[in-house]
Amino acid sequence: VDAVERLDAIEAIKQLKARYFRCVDTKDWVGLEAVFAPDVAIDITDDVPADRGGIVQGARAFVADASRSLGGMVTVHHGHVPEIEITSDTTARGIWPMEDMLQWQEGANAPREMHGYGHYRETYELLDGSWRIASMKLTRLRRDTAPV
Amino acid sequence: VDAVERLDAIEAIKQLKARYFRCVDTKDWVGLEAVFAPDVAIDITDDVPADRGGIVQGARAFVADASRSLGGMVTVHHGHVPEIEITSDTTARGIWPMEDMLQWQEGANAPREMHGYGHYRETYELLDGSWRIASMKLTRLRRDTAPV
Amino acid sequence: VDAVERLDAIEAIKQLKARYFRCVDTKDWVGLEAVFAPDVAIDITDDVPADRGGIVQGARAFVADASRSLGGMVTVHHGHVPEIEITSDTTARGIWPMEDMLQWQEGANAPREMHGYGHYRETYELLDGSWRIASMKLTRLRRDTAPV
Repeated sequence: VDAVERLDAIEAIKQLKARYFRCVDTKDWVGLEAVFAPDVAIDITDDVPADRGGIVQGARAFVADASRSLGGMVTVHHGHVPEIEITSDTTARGIWPMEDMLQWQEGANAPREMHGYGHYRETYELLDGSWRIASMKLTRLRRDTAPV
Repeated sequence: VDAVERLDAIEAIKQLKARYFRCVDTKDWVGLEAVFAPDVAIDITDDVPADRGGIVQGARAFVADASRSLGGMVTVHHGHVPEIEITSDTTARGIWPMEDMLQWQEGANAPREMHGYGHYRETYELLDGSWRIASMKLTRLRRDTAPV
Repeated sequence: VDAVERLDAIEAIKQLKARYFRCVDTKDWVGLEAVFAPDVAIDITDDVPADRGGIVQGARAFVADASRSLGGMVTVHHGHVPEIEITSDTTARGIWPMEDMLQWQEGANAPREMHGYGHYRETYELLDGSWRIASMKLTRLRRDTAPV
């Protein structure tokens, strides 16, 4: 991979992840599914135990879960300056510092608010000319919750 | 536009918007005016109704408003990883996730603090060799205010 | 410096600073020392007076201080879209908007939490083929503390 191809791939992956954040927060579920490889492997066990859905296989299944759990909330997700490494013509990996705020409706039987911080560790694949998230694992530095 | 010119323009636009945020927060009003095309079209009607100043035409008018409304406050504005598309040799558009915190003086007849989240949707023009913001529209995901 | 070399250096410096933030927050002190030139000049006098350690010379001394003061805390540091200028083949400078959250253990004789905002102003050097932070000065826009 020459320098220009590498820089071009890094910029494409940054915009891919920016689209991930925007689609989650604007509830664009069709757009969200398109950022993932169809067989994406997702691990959010730092938030949700494995036996309660923290391991998800496939873009369709993950977006179905996300639309159900986040659809009725106000969410804000931010990605900060990442470390992205192009590992071949068609593969890459990256680490993204992140911050998220989830706000439940008043009266729900749950904390009204969660404000979290952590890192996404991801791999990427070039599929049919566009980069996709091939795997995504979230680890947390901190999680604050405010009671109803 | 070839790959290098495109990447160069994207980086220039990122630094342009970084300058926008820095100039607002350090109250560098001369620097702030310079990030805009002279005839910039601004739409902050998600924050301020149109009949109370939410539509502003021109860099000079916008900076006059901003210096008056924000000059006495502590402000923090952050832009997160953007989606920028170069649409021709001299035009581009972008979406910026953003977060802002405005802190009023104690005792003002207003909330003491506003903490907001949303997206800037912008267009850019290359004028005399430097990129400028040609239009800017802010939409909000969330706004929190704390009373005096 | 041609356009590709310049863009490549800018991306390398972004990833360098991303590594700085990640190493601080994951307490990777060996990794943290490696982001600095050995004789780095650090000025955090906006947080800590000069006679109490706000001026530090050398990567080893700074990392010794950081591991002592931050080692037992949960910290979150974020860097937002920067302005980076390549000033020669081997030197550069940059401005990074930043946000940090420090959380002390309950019961410590100190505020339990500090949440701050500001800018890093830095210079960089290319040493043995890799960019390093050669100087770093932090200025604050705002600092909030919450009492124990």
